[in-house]
Formats: sequence, C-alpha cells, structure tokens
Amino acid sequence: MSFSKQSVGLVPQQTFTFAQEEPFSLESGASLGPVTLTYETYGRLNEAKTNAILVCHALTGSAHAAGYHSEEDAKPGWWDDCIGPQKAFDTDRFFVICSNVIGSCYGSSGPTEIDLKTGRPYGLSFPVVTIGDMVRAQRRLIDSMGIDRLLCIAGGSMGGMQVLEWAARYPERLLAAIPIASTAHHSPMLIGFSEVGRQAIYADPFWNGGDYHESEQKPDAGLAVARMVGHITYLSDASMQRKFGRRLRSREKYGYEFQTEFEVESYLKYNGSKFTRRFDANAYLYITKAMDYFDLTQPSGSLAASFTQSAEVKYLVISFTSDWLYPSYHSKELVRALHAVGADVTYLDIESSWGHDAFLLEVETMTRLLKSYLERLCREAGLDIAAEDDQIADGEVF
Amino acid sequence: MSFSKQSVGLVPQQTFTFAQEEPFSLESGASLGPVTLTYETYGRLNEAKTNAILVCHALTGSAHAAGYHSEEDAKPGWWDDCIGPQKAFDTDRFFVICSNVIGSCYGSSGPTEIDLKTGRPYGLSFPVVTIGDMVRAQRRLIDSMGIDRLLCIAGGSMGGMQVLEWAARYPERLLAAIPIASTAHHSPMLIGFSEVGRQAIYADPFWNGGDYHESEQKPDAGLAVARMVGHITYLSDASMQRKFGRRLRSREKYGYEFQTEFEVESYLKYNGSKFTRRFDANAYLYITKAMDYFDLTQPSGSLAASFTQSAEVKYLVISFTSDWLYPSYHSKELVRALHAVGADVTYLDIESSWGHDAFLLEVETMTRLLKSYLERLCREAGLDIAAEDDQIADGEVF
Repeated sequence: MSFSKQSVGLVPQQTFTFAQEEPFSLESGASLGPVTLTYETYGRLNEAKTNAILVCHALTGSAHAAGYHSEEDAKPGWWDDCIGPQKAFDTDRFFVICSNVIGSCYGSSGPTEIDLKTGRPYGLSFPVVTIGDMVRAQRRLIDSMGIDRLLCIAGGSMGGMQVLEWAARYPERLLAAIPIASTAHHSPMLIGFSEVGRQAIYADPFWNGGDYHESEQKPDAGLAVARMVGHITYLSDASMQRKFGRRLRSREKYGYEFQTEFEVESYLKYNGSKFTRRFDANAYLYITKAMDYFDLTQPSGSLAASFTQSAEVKYLVISFTSDWLYPSYHSKELVRALHAVGADVTYLDIESSWGHDAFLLEVETMTRLLKSYLERLCREAGLDIAAEDDQIADGEVF
Repeated sequence: MSFSKQSVGLVPQQTFTFAQEEPFSLESGASLGPVTLTYETYGRLNEAKTNAILVCHALTGSAHAAGYHSEEDAKPGWWDDCIGPQKAFDTDRFFVICSNVIGSCYGSSGPTEIDLKTGRPYGLSFPVVTIGDMVRAQRRLIDSMGIDRLLCIAGGSMGGMQVLEWAARYPERLLAAIPIASTAHHSPMLIGFSEVGRQAIYADPFWNGGDYHESEQKPDAGLAVARMVGHITYLSDASMQRKFGRRLRSREKYGYEFQTEFEVESYLKYNGSKFTRRFDANAYLYITKAMDYFDLTQPSGSLAASFTQSAEVKYLVISFTSDWLYPSYHSKELVRALHAVGADVTYLDIESSWGHDAFLLEVETMTRLLKSYLERLCREAGLDIAAEDDQIADGEVF
C-alpha cells in the first residue's frame, strides 16, 4: 500500500512521562505521578522552533490525528483531512503535535492504566481531572520539546476548550488560538447530556462501581447507550433527514415488532456497539466530567476577566450554524469577551447543515480558512516558514 | 379542600370496553379484544351533541387531563391550565373528553394489563399499535357517546399526531383540528431519540425481554435513563440556562467526584427516578414505536394527498420557536400541504423560549388563542353554545 502525496503516511505513537519524582498537582487538590502522555507529531520542527502547532482532540479522540499506524489501517487519524502535506495544517511547513489527554484510554494516564502503587488498573481510584489539568500536562510535553511558543493551538469541541484554557492561562506560550465549535463554559444542556451518558453507564450492572477492568464483562450496553445519545447530538435535524430520512433498513415495510427497522436506528446501534470496542466506560465518565467542570467565566463571573492577560494572543473563532450542541451564540459570547480585552479576533459562523460534526466534515471551507489564517499569522509575526523539499510529501519519512 | 372556581373539581375516571365479541383489527394485521379505554369528561354534553371537544395526550400522559381524583391530590390533570370553567377549553360551554391511548399503562389495554387468554399481564405479547389504532379506538368511544361530529380535536406532541390522524382519516367526524407542537411524520432525529430510550430499557437486565410485570424488580434504571434523555429534549438551551445555569446543588464548590453536583443533574435524576413510579417500561416501548411509525406522507409520498378528503376540516396549527424536537418547519410543511388542498388554516409560530414543553407552559398565550379560535369556530358553524348556569363553576358537580 502506498499513501497519497497528501498523507503523512506511517506514524509512530510516542510517549512522554513526567512527574516521576515530584507528583503532578491536580486542580482537585489530588496529585498524580508518574504521568504519561501518548502523542504523535507530523512534519518537522524547524531549528528556531517557531513552526509548532498543537492540535487538541475531542471527548473520544486520541493522539492519532493523522496518518496511519500500519499499512493495514482502514482509516487514518481523526483529523487527517486537515493535517498533511499541503493540507490546512501543512506538514511541509509546520510541525504538528497531538497528545492524548490525561483521563483518556488511549495510552495516557487514566482509569484504564496500571496504578504502580497497586499493580492494578486505576478504575475509579484515578483522580478526577479537569481541562486545566489536561492542558498543564500538555504544557510539560511542549516544555520537553524545548518549544517556547507554539505558532497556534487548534481544536474542536473539547479540543476548543483546551485551546481556550491554554490562551487564558499561558498566553505567552502561543501566538494564536483556534477554538472551533466550542465554548468557554459548558452549558446546562451539555451537562445534562453528559449526565445521561454517565447514568446509562452507572445503570449497567457490569460497570460494578467502576471496578470491571480485570473482568471479562464490561459495561458495554451502558457505554453504547451513552454513545448513541452523544451521536444524535453531534448531528443535526437536517443532516439526519439527509442521511437517513425515514428509510427502513433491509425491509420494505414496518415489521410491527421491537426490532431495528429504521436506518437511523441501525446506524446508532451499530455505532454505539462499535464504540465499545474502542473506548472505555470509566474514561467516558472522567472526560465528560472534565468538560462539565469547564467554565472560564470563573472565578470572577466575567469571561473577559479570564482573558485580560491574554489580549496579545490572536484568535480565530469558528462556529457552525447548525451546531445545536455548541451553538454559535457561545462563540459569539466568547468573541465579545475577547473584543472587550482588545484582542485581535477573527470570527466565522460557517453556514453548514452538518451540526456539531461540521468541524470534521466541512473540509474545504476549513482548509481555505485555516490556510489563509496561518499565512497571515506567519506574515504578521515575521516568520519565514517555507515548505521543506518534496521528500516529505512522499509519505516515506518514517 | 375546596377547588378554585376555575377548576373542574373532583373527576371520576371512567372506562369503555369494546370488541368483546369481534376483535379489533390493528394496522399490523394482528387483532385485539376486548379493548378497554379509560377516559374522563369535563363539562356537559349538550342535547344536540355539538359541544364536544376531544383532547389527546402525549407520550406519557393519561386520560386525567383536568381536575382531581381525590382531595389529597397534590397536582391536577396534565392540561388543567387549559381545561375548566372559563379556561381555554371552557367547561361551562364545552364537553371535553380525554381518553388514554391503547398501549399505555393508565388503565387502557396495554402491556401492563391482564391478557384474559392467559390470566397474566400481556408484556411483549401485547400487539404493536399505531397512532392510527389509537385513533380508531377513540372513535369507538366517541361513537358510543352518540357524538357524530366533534367541535374540535386538540393535542400537543403525540396528541397532535392523533389530531392529524383523525383529520386525515375521519374528516366528517370533526369541525376543527388543533395540532400543537407536533408533526405529520416523525423525523429521523425523533426516531433516534426514541431508539436511545428503548435501548436504555433493553439494556436493563431487569427488563428481562419484557417479562417483568410479575417480578419485584422492574427495569427502573433503564426507564429512568430513557426519561432523562426525553426530558432534555422537551426543554431548550435557553430554558435550561434560565432554570439551572451552572448552579451547584447543595454545595459551594466542585466535589471532584462522580456525584450529582449540578442542579441540572439533580433535576434530571430526580425526574428520571420519579417517572419510574408512574410509568411502565414496556408501555414506553409501545408508545415510542407508535410515534416512530407515524407518517402521513405515506402511502403516496405526498402529505397533501393524505388531506385531499379533509379540506372541509378547519385547522389551527401551533408551533413554538424554541421547540427543537418538533421544530416549526414541521408545522410549516403541514400548513403548506393543507393550503394545497384548499383547507381553512390558521397557523401560529409562537415566540417562546420553553422548547417543546411550551405547549403546556405558555398558558396565557394558548388561552387567548384557543378561546378566540373556538369563538370563531362556533360563530362560523352557527352553533349557539352558551355557558351553562353558574353551578358548574363551583366544583361540586361530581
């Protein structure tokens, strides 16, 4: 198999471990150590270390943002549409980093990992983490790479929360922040949907109070229901009409029985079940909880107050018209707060019918937008980041 | 306890049984008999039998639309705000009927009732029913009362589907149809949310393939999750912001643990749990399935075609701007179809931030609107329906 010229090709997963000696303090007051992050990088860091871009993943994402782990992989990383030679995040020019968040189940410290103190998986003894904790762990990774300032940090959904946390807490560490289809504070509706997913998991007897990691039976039924709820919220009424309508699945007429009959039922059930093969129920609890806690209006009650020290960062804020989970008005509120502190803000409410998923699907628009924004960013910062020679585009680098 | 002058006061629940000899044929091809409906009536049927109004309930509603069953009742019937002396459906003038749908668990034939053939609760051996079946059963009730033509039929959500089914199938039996916050065909998003609720029930081991009615343990956990999902969809982002915001419940700061912390979590959990004390999991399956099957665009593919014989019925179609579950465009599509067949249609898209629940909450607007519409209806039909004397308003009638 050969990869396309626009693919980063085969990529290895890497790990970074810190806090082996002094434990990492969490917002909750608990501490954790050692802490491991899995991460991937695409493209090459230039000598001046000025071409680094951090991309942050959403709830169920991983460090595998682009390329392939093996030639047999059916699918590339989750943001492969935007990361690669000549893509939005052009790996001929930029060094792109993606790290898995703590609390997740893709190799970083989280409930599925072994607690060295007990030799058993953490389960619910893993401390509750926040978006702030995730970002401070990422900062250690960026420190370890010797990168003083990232060209930009970009991410959609929960990725956008990490972007905003970075900008608010460590403005000196990034030139630009690109929060996409996101919010500066989780809304009660979002908390409600999170809690429904958690309750579905708690209700599964195989969840067993979070202690199932060494058991054969996992709380798959509960996790699948949580995913199904989530899945609907990532779509829009219009996209569901287009994608499924009222079409029946493999039948001509109603069966008048409690079976999967409609395409949309089949799709949700299939995706719910598939999800249980790649994700962990406890990790779902930890990460949704971190999202629910996220609120940059605190402690002062004013969103602008959280960004007063961050006016030097440039912002590209993106929302999508049909995203009802992270509606545009959240982004507009953020834009108003950023204007209030005098920041350089570009805002786009992109017309799309794909709902929240639009940030992964509106590839053409996103590519055009991100490319021109990064172009402007480099120009204004006086950074001369030229494309490396063609060999990078061959997908033979690793 | 004395009831207010605007209450219908104490009301008895009544039952009507038919198909004792010849079974009732269902759309599925199955048959059922005998069939029982529980129902209530408010006000008095006039001699000419021209003042009868049928109100149809939503998914988890019952025949108890107004008044109280006992003096100890904490709450009146589900549409008490609109049914009573001088209310929107003025019981000084009109005779209001509400019947519980078949498939439900409030006394009508359904999965919780005893199958006379076996002496045991039907459970999943109860046949799958449709909105059409529900309406044909109601028609038998109306027949038994000797009412040739109802003044109007009104209902919100699934109640509105019954209204439209009546109008499309039996136009000669009603003067006016009032579908509120409803649709002429369940959308894939609605089917998706239904299916999530059903999967949450199936996933509960106490559901036991639907065979739990004689067991101590009911699938309460699954049913509660289904209700929680539903509950979010009945609200709006704005109403949740107003009602809960990000307020914590009985605590000042985050607990960093997997407990109910936010008001919105507490509210959903409480309502999910409360729901299991009043509703049945199998009934939830049957009724959501009936809603999912509902599609008046069939069999021709054209919504207007289903109403060609129904152009003489007058229509008052109501939607609410923040209802994202049954969005206004569903009502607008219906209105276009009704215009196409030349029907007399009044349409109102009411500005409200309460989401789908608005049909029960926007009492003032609904009262004004329904009153003036019914006034016009009586005038145009040449019906002289005067208020009866004051004794009806005393709540001492029953």
